[in-house]
Amino acid sequence: MSDWFDADGPVESVNIGDRGFQYGDGLFETIAIRDGQPRLWNYHMDRMTLGCERLALARPAEADLRAGVTSALQRSGFCKDACVVKLVVTAGGGARGYGRAPVDEPSVYFGVSAATLPGKESWRDGIETLLCATRLAAPSATAGLKTLNRLEQVLARSELAGTGIFEGLTMDAEGEVICGTMSNLFVVHDGKLRTPSLARCGVEGVMRRHVITSLAEQGIRTDIRSITLADMNNSDEIFICNSQFGMLPVRRCMDRLWPVGRVTREIMAVLADSGIAECRW
Amino acid sequence: MSDWFDADGPVESVNIGDRGFQYGDGLFETIAIRDGQPRLWNYHMDRMTLGCERLALARPAEADLRAGVTSALQRSGFCKDACVVKLVVTAGGGARGYGRAPVDEPSVYFGVSAATLPGKESWRDGIETLLCATRLAAPSATAGLKTLNRLEQVLARSELAGTGIFEGLTMDAEGEVICGTMSNLFVVHDGKLRTPSLARCGVEGVMRRHVITSLAEQGIRTDIRSITLADMNNSDEIFICNSQFGMLPVRRCMDRLWPVGRVTREIMAVLADSGIAECRW
Repeated sequence: MSDWFDADGPVESVNIGDRGFQYGDGLFETIAIRDGQPRLWNYHMDRMTLGCERLALARPAEADLRAGVTSALQRSGFCKDACVVKLVVTAGGGARGYGRAPVDEPSVYFGVSAATLPGKESWRDGIETLLCATRLAAPSATAGLKTLNRLEQVLARSELAGTGIFEGLTMDAEGEVICGTMSNLFVVHDGKLRTPSLARCGVEGVMRRHVITSLAEQGIRTDIRSITLADMNNSDEIFICNSQFGMLPVRRCMDRLWPVGRVTREIMAVLADSGIAECRW
Repeated sequence: MSDWFDADGPVESVNIGDRGFQYGDGLFETIAIRDGQPRLWNYHMDRMTLGCERLALARPAEADLRAGVTSALQRSGFCKDACVVKLVVTAGGGARGYGRAPVDEPSVYFGVSAATLPGKESWRDGIETLLCATRLAAPSATAGLKTLNRLEQVLARSELAGTGIFEGLTMDAEGEVICGTMSNLFVVHDGKLRTPSLARCGVEGVMRRHVITSLAEQGIRTDIRSITLADMNNSDEIFICNSQFGMLPVRRCMDRLWPVGRVTREIMAVLADSGIAECRW
Protein backbone atom coordinates (compact mmCIF):
# COMPACT_ATOMS: atom_id res chain seq x y z
CA MET A 1 0.00 0.00 0.00
CA SER A 2 0.98 3.59 -0.48
CA ASP A 3 1.14 6.61 1.79
CA TRP A 4 -0.32 9.67 0.09
CA PHE A 5 0.47 13.34 0.49
CA ASP A 6 -0.27 16.67 -1.08
CA ALA A 7 1.76 19.85 -0.65
CA ASP A 8 0.30 20.37 2.83
CA GLY A 9 0.66 16.93 4.32
CA PRO A 10 -0.93 13.47 4.42
CA VAL A 11 -4.11 12.87 2.44
CA GLU A 12 -6.33 9.83 2.49
CA SER A 13 -8.96 10.88 0.01
CA VAL A 14 -9.78 13.07 -2.96
CA ASN A 15 -12.92 15.06 -3.61
CA ILE A 16 -15.43 12.83 -5.35
CA GLY A 17 -15.98 15.59 -7.90
CA ASP A 18 -12.30 15.53 -8.88
CA ARG A 19 -12.12 15.06 -12.63
CA GLY A 20 -9.40 12.51 -12.06
CA PHE A 21 -12.05 10.27 -10.47
CA GLN A 22 -14.96 11.23 -12.72
CA TYR A 23 -13.19 10.98 -16.09
CA GLY A 24 -9.58 9.94 -15.53
CA ASP A 25 -8.79 13.56 -16.45
CA GLY A 26 -5.17 13.64 -15.36
CA LEU A 27 -1.67 12.21 -15.60
CA PHE A 28 0.84 10.39 -13.47
CA GLU A 29 4.51 9.49 -13.21
CA THR A 30 5.93 6.50 -11.38
CA ILE A 31 9.32 7.67 -10.19
CA ALA A 32 12.04 5.38 -8.84
CA ILE A 33 13.70 6.77 -5.70
CA ARG A 34 17.27 5.60 -5.19
CA ASP A 35 19.53 6.88 -2.40
CA GLY A 36 16.77 9.32 -1.52
CA GLN A 37 16.77 10.95 -4.95
CA PRO A 38 14.28 10.67 -7.82
CA ARG A 39 15.88 8.90 -10.79
CA LEU A 40 15.46 10.20 -14.36
CA TRP A 41 13.67 13.22 -12.91
CA ASN A 42 14.18 15.36 -16.02
CA TYR A 43 12.59 12.73 -18.24
CA HIS A 44 9.62 12.43 -15.90
CA MET A 45 9.26 16.22 -15.99
CA ASP A 46 9.44 16.27 -19.78
CA ARG A 47 6.68 13.70 -20.14
CA MET A 48 4.56 15.47 -17.53
CA THR A 49 5.06 18.76 -19.36
CA LEU A 50 4.00 17.22 -22.66
CA GLY A 51 0.99 15.56 -21.03
CA CYS A 52 -0.10 18.81 -19.38
CA GLU A 53 0.12 20.57 -22.73
CA ARG A 54 -1.97 17.92 -24.43
CA LEU A 55 -4.60 17.92 -21.64
CA ALA A 56 -4.61 21.72 -21.24
CA LEU A 57 -3.38 21.64 -17.65
CA ALA A 58 -0.90 24.22 -16.39
CA ARG A 59 2.24 22.25 -15.57
CA PRO A 60 2.81 22.63 -11.81
CA ALA A 61 6.10 24.38 -11.13
CA GLU A 62 8.97 21.91 -11.21
CA ALA A 63 10.34 23.23 -7.93
CA ASP A 64 6.98 22.58 -6.26
CA LEU A 65 6.85 19.04 -7.63
CA ARG A 66 10.38 18.35 -6.49
CA ALA A 67 9.68 19.80 -3.05
CA GLY A 68 6.51 17.70 -2.87
CA VAL A 69 8.46 14.52 -3.63
CA THR A 70 11.07 15.36 -0.99
CA SER A 71 8.43 16.21 1.60
CA ALA A 72 6.43 13.03 0.86
CA LEU A 73 9.59 10.93 1.23
CA GLN A 74 10.46 12.54 4.54
CA ARG A 75 6.96 12.21 5.96
CA SER A 76 6.59 8.61 4.80
CA GLY A 77 9.84 7.47 6.38
CA PHE A 78 10.83 5.80 3.12
CA CYS A 79 13.48 8.38 2.27
CA LYS A 80 16.52 6.18 2.85
CA ASP A 81 15.17 3.13 1.02
CA ALA A 82 14.70 2.25 -2.58
CA CYS A 83 11.08 3.19 -3.14
CA VAL A 84 8.57 4.57 -5.60
CA VAL A 85 6.82 7.92 -5.73
CA LYS A 86 3.67 8.05 -7.82
CA LEU A 87 3.08 11.66 -8.81
CA VAL A 88 -0.54 12.29 -9.81
CA VAL A 89 -1.71 15.53 -11.47
CA THR A 90 -5.43 15.94 -12.16
CA ALA A 91 -7.75 18.59 -13.57
CA GLY A 92 -9.24 18.93 -10.07
CA GLY A 93 -12.84 19.85 -9.32
CA GLY A 94 -15.17 21.44 -11.78
CA ALA A 95 -18.63 21.45 -13.25
CA ARG A 96 -20.32 18.25 -14.42
CA GLY A 97 -19.77 17.39 -18.07
CA TYR A 98 -16.85 16.34 -20.21
CA GLY A 99 -15.79 19.73 -21.53
CA ARG A 100 -13.71 22.16 -19.53
CA ALA A 101 -11.54 25.23 -19.83
CA PRO A 102 -7.76 24.91 -19.44
CA VAL A 103 -6.90 24.31 -15.78
CA ASP A 104 -4.60 26.84 -14.11
CA GLU A 105 -4.13 24.99 -10.84
CA PRO A 106 -4.25 21.23 -11.22
CA SER A 107 -4.47 19.03 -8.15
CA VAL A 108 -1.21 17.29 -7.23
CA TYR A 109 -0.72 14.18 -5.11
CA PHE A 110 2.31 12.15 -4.11
CA GLY A 111 2.05 8.46 -3.24
CA VAL A 112 5.02 6.70 -1.66
CA SER A 113 5.39 2.94 -1.58
CA ALA A 114 8.15 0.37 -1.20
CA ALA A 115 9.98 -0.73 -4.34
CA THR A 116 8.76 -4.08 -5.61
CA LEU A 117 11.58 -5.50 -7.69
CA PRO A 118 11.89 -9.05 -9.00
CA GLY A 119 14.59 -11.40 -7.75
CA LYS A 120 18.22 -11.07 -8.87
CA GLU A 121 17.86 -14.10 -11.15
CA SER A 122 15.51 -12.08 -13.38
CA TRP A 123 18.40 -9.95 -14.60
CA ARG A 124 20.61 -13.01 -15.04
CA ASP A 125 18.19 -15.45 -16.67
CA GLY A 126 15.53 -13.17 -18.11
CA ILE A 127 11.79 -13.12 -17.44
CA GLU A 128 8.76 -14.74 -19.02
CA THR A 129 6.06 -12.84 -20.88
CA LEU A 130 2.75 -13.66 -22.50
CA LEU A 131 0.98 -12.06 -25.40
CA CYS A 132 -2.15 -10.35 -24.07
CA ALA A 133 -5.52 -10.89 -25.77
CA THR A 134 -6.35 -7.28 -24.84
CA ARG A 135 -5.30 -5.04 -27.73
CA LEU A 136 -4.41 -1.36 -27.60
CA ALA A 137 -6.77 0.94 -29.51
CA ALA A 138 -5.29 3.39 -32.01
CA PRO A 139 -4.65 6.06 -32.96
CA SER A 140 -5.03 7.24 -29.39
CA ALA A 141 -5.49 10.95 -28.65
CA THR A 142 -3.18 10.39 -25.69
CA ALA A 143 -0.56 8.16 -27.36
CA GLY A 144 2.76 8.27 -25.53
CA LEU A 145 1.31 9.84 -22.39
CA LYS A 146 0.82 8.31 -18.98
CA THR A 147 -2.75 9.38 -18.29
CA LEU A 148 -5.18 8.22 -15.60
CA ASN A 149 -7.13 6.32 -18.32
CA ARG A 150 -5.51 2.93 -17.82
CA LEU A 151 -8.27 0.39 -18.35
CA GLU A 152 -6.45 -1.25 -21.26
CA GLN A 153 -3.51 -1.94 -18.97
CA VAL A 154 -5.79 -3.10 -16.16
CA LEU A 155 -7.48 -5.59 -18.50
CA ALA A 156 -4.23 -6.71 -20.12
CA ARG A 157 -2.40 -7.07 -16.82
CA SER A 158 -5.29 -8.98 -15.25
CA GLU A 159 -4.73 -11.66 -17.89
CA LEU A 160 -1.54 -12.57 -16.01
CA ALA A 161 -3.35 -13.34 -12.75
CA GLY A 162 -2.29 -16.70 -11.35
CA THR A 163 0.21 -17.44 -14.14
CA GLY A 164 3.38 -16.36 -12.37
CA ILE A 165 4.39 -14.68 -15.62
CA PHE A 166 6.23 -11.39 -15.12
CA GLU A 167 4.87 -9.22 -17.93
CA GLY A 168 2.24 -9.15 -20.67
CA LEU A 169 3.05 -7.78 -24.11
CA THR A 170 0.29 -5.89 -25.90
CA MET A 171 -0.39 -5.49 -29.62
CA ASP A 172 -2.58 -3.14 -31.58
CA ALA A 173 -5.35 -4.39 -33.88
CA GLU A 174 -2.91 -4.79 -36.78
CA GLY A 175 -0.75 -7.24 -34.82
CA GLU A 176 2.06 -4.81 -34.17
CA VAL A 177 3.67 -5.30 -30.79
CA ILE A 178 3.53 -1.97 -28.94
CA CYS A 179 4.75 -2.39 -25.37
CA GLY A 180 4.33 -4.31 -22.14
CA THR A 181 1.58 -3.51 -19.65
CA MET A 182 4.17 -1.74 -17.49
CA SER A 183 7.25 -1.68 -19.70
CA ASN A 184 8.63 -0.88 -23.14
CA LEU A 185 10.05 -3.44 -25.54
CA PHE A 186 13.28 -3.66 -27.54
CA VAL A 187 14.29 -6.35 -30.00
CA VAL A 188 17.71 -7.19 -31.43
CA HIS A 189 17.90 -8.57 -34.98
CA ASP A 190 21.18 -9.19 -36.78
CA GLY A 191 22.90 -7.04 -34.16
CA LYS A 192 20.55 -4.09 -34.77
CA LEU A 193 18.34 -2.64 -32.06
CA ARG A 194 14.70 -1.74 -32.62
CA THR A 195 11.86 -0.50 -30.42
CA PRO A 196 8.23 0.03 -31.46
CA SER A 197 7.01 3.43 -32.53
CA LEU A 198 4.58 4.77 -29.95
CA ALA A 199 3.09 7.42 -32.21
CA ARG A 200 -0.32 5.68 -32.32
CA CYS A 201 -0.63 4.12 -28.85
CA GLY A 202 1.38 2.99 -25.85
CA VAL A 203 3.31 4.88 -23.21
CA GLU A 204 6.70 6.45 -23.90
CA GLY A 205 8.55 5.23 -20.86
CA VAL A 206 11.32 7.28 -19.29
CA MET A 207 13.62 4.24 -19.18
CA ARG A 208 12.99 3.64 -22.90
CA ARG A 209 14.21 7.17 -23.52
CA HIS A 210 17.16 6.62 -21.23
CA VAL A 211 18.12 3.40 -23.07
CA ILE A 212 17.91 5.12 -26.46
CA THR A 213 19.85 8.16 -25.25
CA SER A 214 22.54 6.24 -23.36
CA LEU A 215 23.17 4.01 -26.36
CA ALA A 216 23.23 6.96 -28.75
CA GLU A 217 26.00 8.45 -26.59
CA GLN A 218 27.93 5.21 -27.24
CA GLY A 219 27.29 5.51 -30.97
CA ILE A 220 24.64 2.78 -30.94
CA ARG A 221 21.50 3.65 -32.89
CA THR A 222 18.01 2.43 -31.99
CA ASP A 223 15.60 2.10 -34.89
CA ILE A 224 12.16 3.33 -33.82
CA ARG A 225 9.49 1.77 -36.01
CA SER A 226 6.70 -0.75 -36.08
CA ILE A 227 7.47 -4.30 -34.96
CA THR A 228 5.06 -7.03 -35.98
CA LEU A 229 4.62 -10.18 -33.97
CA ALA A 230 6.52 -12.00 -36.73
CA ASP A 231 9.35 -9.45 -36.45
CA MET A 232 9.52 -10.05 -32.72
CA ASN A 233 9.51 -13.81 -33.10
CA ASN A 234 12.24 -13.57 -35.75
CA SER A 235 14.46 -11.45 -33.51
CA ASP A 236 17.60 -12.82 -31.88
CA GLU A 237 17.18 -11.21 -28.46
CA ILE A 238 14.49 -9.17 -26.74
CA PHE A 239 14.31 -7.17 -23.55
CA ILE A 240 11.95 -4.86 -21.69
CA CYS A 241 12.61 -1.77 -19.63
CA ASN A 242 10.83 0.42 -17.11
CA SER A 243 11.59 3.13 -14.59
CA GLN A 244 11.77 0.73 -11.64
CA PHE A 245 13.76 -2.31 -12.77
CA GLY A 246 15.83 -0.69 -15.49
CA MET A 247 15.93 -3.43 -18.10
CA LEU A 248 15.30 -7.16 -18.05
CA PRO A 249 16.04 -9.81 -20.68
CA VAL A 250 12.97 -11.66 -21.96
CA ARG A 251 13.56 -15.38 -22.20
CA ARG A 252 10.09 -16.41 -23.31
CA CYS A 253 6.87 -15.18 -24.92
CA MET A 254 4.29 -17.92 -25.35
CA ASP A 255 6.10 -20.78 -27.18
CA ARG A 256 9.04 -18.68 -28.33
CA LEU A 257 12.23 -18.92 -26.27
CA TRP A 258 15.19 -16.57 -26.46
CA PRO A 259 18.67 -16.76 -25.00
CA VAL A 260 19.95 -13.86 -22.90
CA GLY A 261 22.18 -12.64 -25.66
CA ARG A 262 25.38 -10.72 -26.02
CA VAL A 263 23.81 -7.45 -27.16
CA THR A 264 21.36 -7.49 -24.25
CA ARG A 265 24.27 -8.01 -21.83
CA GLU A 266 26.19 -5.15 -23.41
CA ILE A 267 23.22 -2.80 -23.14
CA MET A 268 22.70 -3.81 -19.51
CA ALA A 269 26.32 -2.86 -18.86
CA VAL A 270 25.80 0.52 -20.52
CA LEU A 271 22.70 1.12 -18.38
CA ALA A 272 24.51 0.04 -15.22
CA ASP A 273 27.34 2.46 -16.01
CA SER A 274 24.76 5.23 -16.54
CA GLY A 275 23.56 4.80 -12.96
CA ILE A 276 20.78 2.21 -13.28
CA ALA A 277 22.24 0.04 -10.54
CA GLU A 278 19.72 -2.81 -10.95
CA CYS A 279 21.35 -3.64 -14.27
CA ARG A 280 24.62 -4.55 -12.51
CA TRP A 281 23.25 -8.03 -11.75
CA MET B 1 -22.59 20.84 -8.92
CA SER B 2 -23.67 17.47 -7.67
CA ASP B 3 -24.59 16.08 -4.26
CA TRP B 4 -22.97 12.70 -3.71
CA PHE B 5 -24.07 9.72 -1.64
CA ASP B 6 -23.23 6.13 -1.02
CA ALA B 7 -25.50 3.51 0.51
CA ASP B 8 -24.95 4.98 3.99
CA GLY B 9 -25.40 8.68 3.33
CA PRO B 10 -23.65 11.76 1.97
CA VAL B 11 -20.05 11.45 0.78
CA GLU B 12 -17.70 14.21 -0.24
CA SER B 13 -14.63 12.20 -1.10
CA VAL B 14 -13.31 8.84 -2.19
CA ASN B 15 -10.25 7.02 -0.94
CA ILE B 16 -7.24 8.19 -2.95
CA GLY B 17 -6.30 4.53 -3.48
CA ASP B 18 -9.65 3.83 -5.17
CA ARG B 19 -8.90 2.26 -8.53
CA GLY B 20 -11.50 4.54 -10.05
CA PHE B 21 -9.16 7.43 -9.28
CA GLN B 22 -5.88 5.65 -9.93
CA TYR B 23 -6.78 3.98 -13.25
CA GLY B 24 -10.36 4.90 -14.17
CA ASP B 25 -11.14 1.29 -13.23
CA GLY B 26 -14.91 1.56 -13.14
CA LEU B 27 -18.15 2.40 -14.90
CA PHE B 28 -20.96 4.89 -14.71
CA GLU B 29 -24.52 5.55 -15.83
CA THR B 30 -26.12 8.96 -16.22
CA ILE B 31 -29.77 8.35 -15.43
CA ALA B 32 -32.57 10.84 -16.16
CA ILE B 33 -35.00 11.19 -13.26
CA ARG B 34 -38.49 12.21 -14.29
CA ASP B 35 -41.44 12.43 -11.87
CA GLY B 36 -39.14 11.02 -9.22
CA GLN B 37 -38.43 7.83 -11.17
CA PRO B 38 -35.33 6.72 -13.10
CA ARG B 39 -36.05 6.57 -16.83
CA LEU B 40 -34.92 3.62 -18.97
CA TRP B 41 -33.73 1.93 -15.78
CA ASN B 42 -33.62 -1.55 -17.34
CA TYR B 43 -31.38 -0.38 -20.17
CA HIS B 44 -29.05 1.32 -17.69
CA MET B 45 -28.92 -1.93 -15.69
CA ASP B 46 -28.23 -3.98 -18.82
CA ARG B 47 -25.29 -1.80 -19.81
CA MET B 48 -23.95 -1.78 -16.24
CA THR B 49 -24.25 -5.58 -16.14
CA LEU B 50 -22.33 -5.92 -19.41
CA GLY B 51 -19.69 -3.46 -18.22
CA CYS B 52 -19.24 -5.29 -14.92
CA GLU B 53 -18.78 -8.56 -16.79
CA ARG B 54 -16.17 -7.05 -19.08
CA LEU B 55 -14.28 -5.41 -16.19
CA ALA B 56 -14.62 -8.43 -13.85
CA LEU B 57 -16.64 -6.56 -11.25
CA ALA B 58 -19.52 -8.27 -9.46
CA ARG B 59 -22.63 -6.36 -10.56
CA PRO B 60 -24.09 -4.77 -7.41
CA ALA B 61 -27.57 -6.12 -6.71
CA GLU B 62 -30.16 -4.25 -8.76
CA ALA B 63 -32.36 -3.75 -5.69
CA ASP B 64 -29.43 -2.10 -3.89
CA LEU B 65 -28.74 0.20 -6.82
CA ARG B 66 -32.40 1.16 -7.09
CA ALA B 67 -32.60 1.76 -3.34
CA GLY B 68 -29.44 3.85 -3.55
CA VAL B 69 -30.94 6.03 -6.27
CA THR B 70 -34.14 6.52 -4.30
CA SER B 71 -32.25 7.33 -1.13
CA ALA B 72 -29.93 9.78 -2.90
CA LEU B 73 -32.93 11.55 -4.45
CA GLN B 74 -34.67 11.85 -1.09
CA ARG B 75 -31.58 13.12 0.71
CA SER B 76 -30.71 15.59 -2.02
CA GLY B 77 -34.15 17.17 -2.08
CA PHE B 78 -34.23 16.81 -5.87
CA CYS B 79 -36.77 14.02 -5.85
CA LYS B 80 -39.71 16.01 -7.23
CA ASP B 81 -37.79 17.71 -10.00
CA ALA B 82 -36.39 16.60 -13.32
CA CYS B 83 -32.82 15.74 -12.42
CA VAL B 84 -29.90 13.46 -13.13
CA VAL B 85 -28.40 10.66 -11.08
CA LYS B 86 -24.87 9.66 -11.97
CA LEU B 87 -24.32 6.11 -10.75
CA VAL B 88 -20.60 5.29 -10.39
CA VAL B 89 -19.30 1.77 -9.79
CA THR B 90 -15.56 1.29 -9.26
CA ALA B 91 -13.16 -1.54 -8.49
CA GLY B 92 -12.57 0.10 -5.08
CA GLY B 93 -9.30 -0.03 -3.15
CA GLY B 94 -6.57 -2.53 -3.77
CA ALA B 95 -2.88 -3.07 -4.17
CA ARG B 96 -0.75 -0.85 -6.40
CA GLY B 97 -0.36 -2.05 -9.97
CA TYR B 98 -2.65 -2.47 -12.96
CA GLY B 99 -3.59 -6.12 -12.52
CA ARG B 100 -6.22 -7.28 -10.09
CA ALA B 101 -8.46 -10.20 -9.25
CA PRO B 102 -12.20 -9.98 -9.98
CA VAL B 103 -13.85 -7.61 -7.51
CA ASP B 104 -16.65 -9.06 -5.36
CA GLU B 105 -17.74 -5.81 -3.76
CA PRO B 106 -17.29 -2.79 -6.01
CA SER B 107 -17.65 0.70 -4.58
CA VAL B 108 -20.91 2.44 -5.52
CA TYR B 109 -21.65 6.16 -5.51
CA PHE B 110 -24.70 8.19 -6.49
CA GLY B 111 -24.40 11.82 -7.63
CA VAL B 112 -27.54 13.94 -7.94
CA SER B 113 -27.65 17.15 -9.94
CA ALA B 114 -30.24 19.35 -11.60
CA ALA B 115 -31.20 18.52 -15.17
CA THR B 116 -29.49 20.78 -17.69
CA LEU B 117 -31.64 20.71 -20.81
CA PRO B 118 -31.39 23.02 -23.82
CA GLY B 119 -34.13 25.51 -24.65
CA LYS B 120 -37.40 24.38 -26.24
CA GLU B 121 -36.32 25.78 -29.61
CA SER B 122 -33.66 23.07 -29.83
CA TRP B 123 -36.32 20.41 -30.40
CA ARG B 124 -38.15 22.64 -32.89
CA ASP B 125 -35.26 24.03 -34.91
CA GLY B 126 -32.49 21.51 -34.28
CA ILE B 127 -29.05 22.07 -32.85
CA GLU B 128 -25.60 22.81 -34.26
CA THR B 129 -22.70 20.42 -34.14
CA LEU B 130 -19.06 20.47 -35.13
CA LEU B 131 -16.76 17.72 -36.24
CA CYS B 132 -14.14 17.17 -33.54
CA ALA B 133 -10.46 16.96 -34.41
CA THR B 134 -10.12 14.44 -31.58
CA ARG B 135 -10.61 10.95 -33.01
CA LEU B 136 -11.76 7.84 -31.18
CA ALA B 137 -9.17 5.05 -31.01
CA ALA B 138 -10.20 1.57 -32.13
CA PRO B 139 -10.76 -1.25 -31.65
CA SER B 140 -11.31 -0.36 -28.01
CA ALA B 141 -11.29 -3.10 -25.37
CA THR B 142 -14.20 -1.22 -23.77
CA ALA B 143 -16.19 -0.39 -26.92
CA GLY B 144 -19.84 0.26 -26.15
CA LEU B 145 -19.28 0.66 -22.41
CA LYS B 146 -19.50 3.79 -20.29
CA THR B 147 -16.28 3.48 -18.34
CA LEU B 148 -14.47 6.02 -16.18
CA ASN B 149 -11.82 6.35 -18.94
CA ARG B 150 -13.27 9.37 -20.68
CA LEU B 151 -10.30 11.45 -21.79
CA GLU B 152 -11.27 11.20 -25.47
CA GLN B 153 -14.61 12.79 -24.64
CA VAL B 154 -12.97 15.39 -22.41
CA LEU B 155 -10.62 16.40 -25.23
CA ALA B 156 -13.33 16.30 -27.92
CA ARG B 157 -15.85 18.20 -25.82
CA SER B 158 -13.28 20.83 -24.85
CA GLU B 159 -13.01 21.70 -28.55
CA LEU B 160 -16.48 23.24 -28.23
CA ALA B 161 -15.43 25.72 -25.53
CA GLY B 162 -16.57 29.21 -26.40
CA THR B 163 -18.28 28.23 -29.66
CA GLY B 164 -21.85 28.03 -28.38
CA ILE B 165 -22.17 24.83 -30.40
CA PHE B 166 -24.30 22.19 -28.71
CA GLU B 167 -22.48 18.96 -29.56
CA GLY B 168 -19.28 17.64 -31.15
CA LEU B 169 -19.35 14.61 -33.44
CA THR B 170 -16.39 12.26 -33.28
CA MET B 171 -14.90 10.02 -35.94
CA ASP B 172 -12.47 7.13 -35.82
CA ALA B 173 -9.18 7.18 -37.71
CA GLU B 174 -10.83 5.85 -40.87
CA GLY B 175 -13.21 8.81 -41.06
CA GLU B 176 -16.25 6.91 -39.91
CA VAL B 177 -18.57 8.98 -37.76
CA ILE B 178 -19.10 7.13 -34.48
CA CYS B 179 -21.09 9.28 -32.05
CA GLY B 180 -21.30 12.63 -30.31
CA THR B 181 -19.28 13.43 -27.22
CA MET B 182 -22.42 12.89 -25.13
CA SER B 183 -24.90 11.47 -27.63
CA ASN B 184 -25.48 8.90 -30.35
CA LEU B 185 -26.12 9.73 -33.98
CA PHE B 186 -28.77 8.65 -36.49
CA VAL B 187 -28.98 9.60 -40.17
CA VAL B 188 -31.90 9.33 -42.57
CA HIS B 189 -31.17 8.63 -46.24
CA ASP B 190 -33.89 7.99 -48.82
CA GLY B 191 -36.31 7.42 -45.96
CA LYS B 192 -34.09 4.77 -44.35
CA LEU B 193 -32.68 5.08 -40.87
CA ARG B 194 -29.07 4.27 -39.98
CA THR B 195 -26.92 4.56 -36.87
CA PRO B 196 -23.20 3.81 -36.60
CA SER B 197 -22.01 0.43 -35.41
CA LEU B 198 -20.32 0.80 -32.02
CA ALA B 199 -18.55 -2.53 -32.14
CA ARG B 200 -15.10 -0.90 -32.34
CA CYS B 201 -15.48 2.28 -30.24
CA GLY B 202 -18.08 4.67 -28.86
CA VAL B 203 -20.69 4.33 -26.14
CA GLU B 204 -23.91 2.40 -26.68
CA GLY B 205 -26.36 4.90 -25.27
CA VAL B 206 -29.54 3.79 -23.56
CA MET B 207 -31.58 6.28 -25.60
CA ARG B 208 -30.07 4.90 -28.82
CA ARG B 209 -31.34 1.49 -27.78
CA HIS B 210 -34.71 2.97 -26.87
CA VAL B 211 -34.98 4.67 -30.29
CA ILE B 212 -34.11 1.45 -32.12
CA THR B 213 -36.48 -0.63 -29.99
CA SER B 214 -39.40 1.82 -30.08
CA LEU B 215 -39.15 2.11 -33.85
CA ALA B 216 -38.85 -1.65 -34.28
CA GLU B 217 -42.14 -1.98 -32.39
CA GLN B 218 -43.63 0.31 -35.06
CA GLY B 219 -42.18 -1.86 -37.82
CA ILE B 220 -39.42 0.65 -38.60
CA ARG B 221 -35.98 -0.90 -38.98
CA THR B 222 -32.71 0.84 -38.06
CA ASP B 223 -29.69 -0.24 -40.05
CA ILE B 224 -26.68 -0.49 -37.71
CA ARG B 225 -23.48 -0.13 -39.71
CA SER B 226 -20.57 2.16 -40.44
CA ILE B 227 -21.34 5.71 -41.56
CA THR B 228 -18.58 7.64 -43.25
CA LEU B 229 -18.41 11.41 -43.15
CA ALA B 230 -19.49 11.38 -46.81
CA ASP B 231 -22.47 9.17 -45.91
CA MET B 232 -23.46 11.62 -43.21
CA ASN B 233 -23.10 14.61 -45.47
CA ASN B 234 -25.15 12.86 -48.16
CA SER B 235 -27.97 12.06 -45.75
CA ASP B 236 -31.31 13.87 -45.85
CA GLU B 237 -31.80 14.33 -42.12
CA ILE B 238 -29.72 13.68 -39.02
CA PHE B 239 -30.46 13.66 -35.32
CA ILE B 240 -28.74 12.83 -32.03
CA CYS B 241 -30.09 11.23 -28.88
CA ASN B 242 -29.12 10.80 -25.26
CA SER B 243 -30.61 9.78 -21.95
CA GLN B 244 -31.33 13.34 -20.85
CA PHE B 245 -32.78 15.20 -23.83
CA GLY B 246 -34.27 12.25 -25.68
CA MET B 247 -33.55 13.23 -29.27
CA LEU B 248 -32.71 16.47 -31.05
CA PRO B 249 -32.61 17.28 -34.75
CA VAL B 250 -29.21 18.39 -36.04
CA ARG B 251 -29.47 21.38 -38.31
CA ARG B 252 -25.78 21.89 -38.94
CA CYS B 253 -22.37 20.23 -38.88
CA MET B 254 -19.58 22.52 -40.04
CA ASP B 255 -20.71 23.87 -43.45
CA ARG B 256 -23.42 21.28 -44.01
CA LEU B 257 -26.99 22.34 -43.19
CA TRP B 258 -29.99 20.05 -42.82
CA PRO B 259 -33.68 20.75 -42.53
CA VAL B 260 -35.59 19.31 -39.59
CA GLY B 261 -37.20 16.66 -41.77
CA ARG B 262 -40.37 14.65 -41.80
CA VAL B 263 -38.79 11.38 -40.65
CA THR B 264 -37.10 13.09 -37.71
CA ARG B 265 -40.45 14.60 -36.68
CA GLU B 266 -42.15 11.22 -36.91
CA ILE B 267 -39.49 9.56 -34.78
CA MET B 268 -39.76 12.35 -32.21
CA ALA B 269 -43.49 11.66 -32.03
CA VAL B 270 -42.83 7.94 -31.51
CA LEU B 271 -40.38 8.74 -28.71
CA ALA B 272 -42.79 11.20 -27.10
CA ASP B 273 -45.52 8.55 -27.15
CA SER B 274 -43.09 6.10 -25.53
CA GLY B 275 -42.73 8.41 -22.55
CA ILE B 276 -39.78 10.63 -23.51
CA ALA B 277 -41.67 13.82 -22.73
CA GLU B 278 -38.96 16.19 -23.97
CA CYS B 279 -39.69 15.05 -27.52
CA ARG B 280 -43.21 16.51 -27.33
CA TRP B 281 -41.84 19.94 -28.20
